[in-house]
Amino acid sequence: MRILVLGAAGMVGRRLIDRLVAEKTIAGETITAIDAFDVVKPEIAAPAGVEIAASAGDIADEATVRALVERRPDFIFHLAAIVSGEAEADFDKGYRINQDGMRHLLEAIRAQGENYRPRLVFTSSIAVFGAPFEEPIGDSFLSAPLTSYGTQKAICELLLNDYSRKGFVDGVGIRLPTIVVRPGKPNKAASSFFSGIIREPLAGQEAILPVADDVRHWVASPASAVGFLMHAATMDTDVLGARRCLTMPGLSVTIAEMIEALREVAGDEVAGRIRREPDAVIEKIVAGWPRTFDAGRAASVGFAADASFADIVRAHMADEAARG
Amino acid sequence: MRILVLGAAGMVGRRLIDRLVAEKTIAGETITAIDAFDVVKPEIAAPAGVEIAASAGDIADEATVRALVERRPDFIFHLAAIVSGEAEADFDKGYRINQDGMRHLLEAIRAQGENYRPRLVFTSSIAVFGAPFEEPIGDSFLSAPLTSYGTQKAICELLLNDYSRKGFVDGVGIRLPTIVVRPGKPNKAASSFFSGIIREPLAGQEAILPVADDVRHWVASPASAVGFLMHAATMDTDVLGARRCLTMPGLSVTIAEMIEALREVAGDEVAGRIRREPDAVIEKIVAGWPRTFDAGRAASVGFAADASFADIVRAHMADEAARG
Repeated sequence: MRILVLGAAGMVGRRLIDRLVAEKTIAGETITAIDAFDVVKPEIAAPAGVEIAASAGDIADEATVRALVERRPDFIFHLAAIVSGEAEADFDKGYRINQDGMRHLLEAIRAQGENYRPRLVFTSSIAVFGAPFEEPIGDSFLSAPLTSYGTQKAICELLLNDYSRKGFVDGVGIRLPTIVVRPGKPNKAASSFFSGIIREPLAGQEAILPVADDVRHWVASPASAVGFLMHAATMDTDVLGARRCLTMPGLSVTIAEMIEALREVAGDEVAGRIRREPDAVIEKIVAGWPRTFDAGRAASVGFAADASFADIVRAHMADEAARG
Repeated sequence: MRILVLGAAGMVGRRLIDRLVAEKTIAGETITAIDAFDVVKPEIAAPAGVEIAASAGDIADEATVRALVERRPDFIFHLAAIVSGEAEADFDKGYRINQDGMRHLLEAIRAQGENYRPRLVFTSSIAVFGAPFEEPIGDSFLSAPLTSYGTQKAICELLLNDYSRKGFVDGVGIRLPTIVVRPGKPNKAASSFFSGIIREPLAGQEAILPVADDVRHWVASPASAVGFLMHAATMDTDVLGARRCLTMPGLSVTIAEMIEALREVAGDEVAGRIRREPDAVIEKIVAGWPRTFDAGRAASVGFAADASFADIVRAHMADEAARG
């Protein structure tokens, strides 16, 4: 099996490749090659027996995407995206990367003809939903995004459904909750602080909290995100019918509950390293985001959420310890 | 006021221009010019005092659209589209005209800069919805189209919302019911027979009915469609918030009820000119279409439906009599 990962240098992409390499098989077949693509060349240690081809390029460039698809990967994971804050600040870049990139990918797959119909797993986002919400948000609620990023993701979902319906690709779209705790440094996503308020205090640093303690959010761990991707790649898609995109299960937690879990796991001193500094721009963006879902459809086809936020904190600490 | 009508040679476009010319004003201001554009040059009699510039071109050509927008119309009506049956048969053409055309239009408007923010009325369709449905379909139900045409319309709605939210345009999207009775000849839309079974018998001709008598559909008259367009052009858009697209009010009628209304208005002999000839392809497309809506949001902002199907039949007969 050949696997193409778009957005392979990102946090979830790297964890996905680690998992694929560790499992050695996908859907019962041996993984022979992984094409790892991103805007910067992904750095991946080549394991024995698996060809790893890392490359860098612009997903909004048609020829680049076509060349990747011409290797006829059996599975494609499309994780590449401009994050929400950047897509809001740079309108053209957001549409180019997040929308045009997806269309080039789908067209490149279609251009391969009838005998090629790979499984395409697309990472969408709960940002496809916008206030006013029903609560919890069910599987029949409209996509009414309040950001350009959410708009682009919603458009990609519609394209994925239509290309799948026409038989050009076998697509599954998964709307990831906000991934917490992301390792490393803050990024340009407006949601970056959700990880920062756990990650920085655990690393002995001060974290800035730009929103109120009663803000509620929908989160999943990095390990769950990779689990969702693997399940989406190997599940029976007949059960999805024409609606190929699913809200993934998550935990609905408030900032106060997140901080309390951090206190429970790591103590008062760590939890005390959070400084409240309200940011009107971030508050406004986050206020437009959904809080609680009924992800019943995803659950009914085998996707499962994290057990508790304290577990998510502990998993992050174990990851960091393993990293050394 | 300068007005641009894209899709001006179509049935609704022509009726819209007739109405604009008859009214002489829009939103209380004098109409000075109408740019009438379509893939074939619209034939419009120039009335006194109004400059009519008719032109033909490809809406999927960026430069063509830019040139139309550079005249800085105050109101833009975007009615141009490849119909459902053709968009399903020619995948590339559907995306080129129905999706790329809209993006070029929005980009051309945005390129004019901050001091230009025209009202853009976009004709969407109930084809953005796909089975399984809630019944009636409310204003918070998801867009899950089962045709490429519906997908393209749903994508245009998302773009219209995002460009409006960013302040680049002042958009209103109206999801038209199936327009019945369309005058003239059958077209390539899978819904063409809904008009045919009324129009042809009234003209002394046999009509083919390709679906069962209990098929239920959501319809509005051509006059109502033009009324929706005019209201969308002149309404206060602040009340819409970020959700600029609305399901228009319609009548929910079965084929049997339509035929009964025809019988009531025109008699047994006319109603007897309908021949049942089931067509599996059309039956399958129509089975994926919605039947009944709760168009509460549109009603709350002033859009109103036809009173009865018999009224729609009578209005068609009056139109045909006026045509001579």
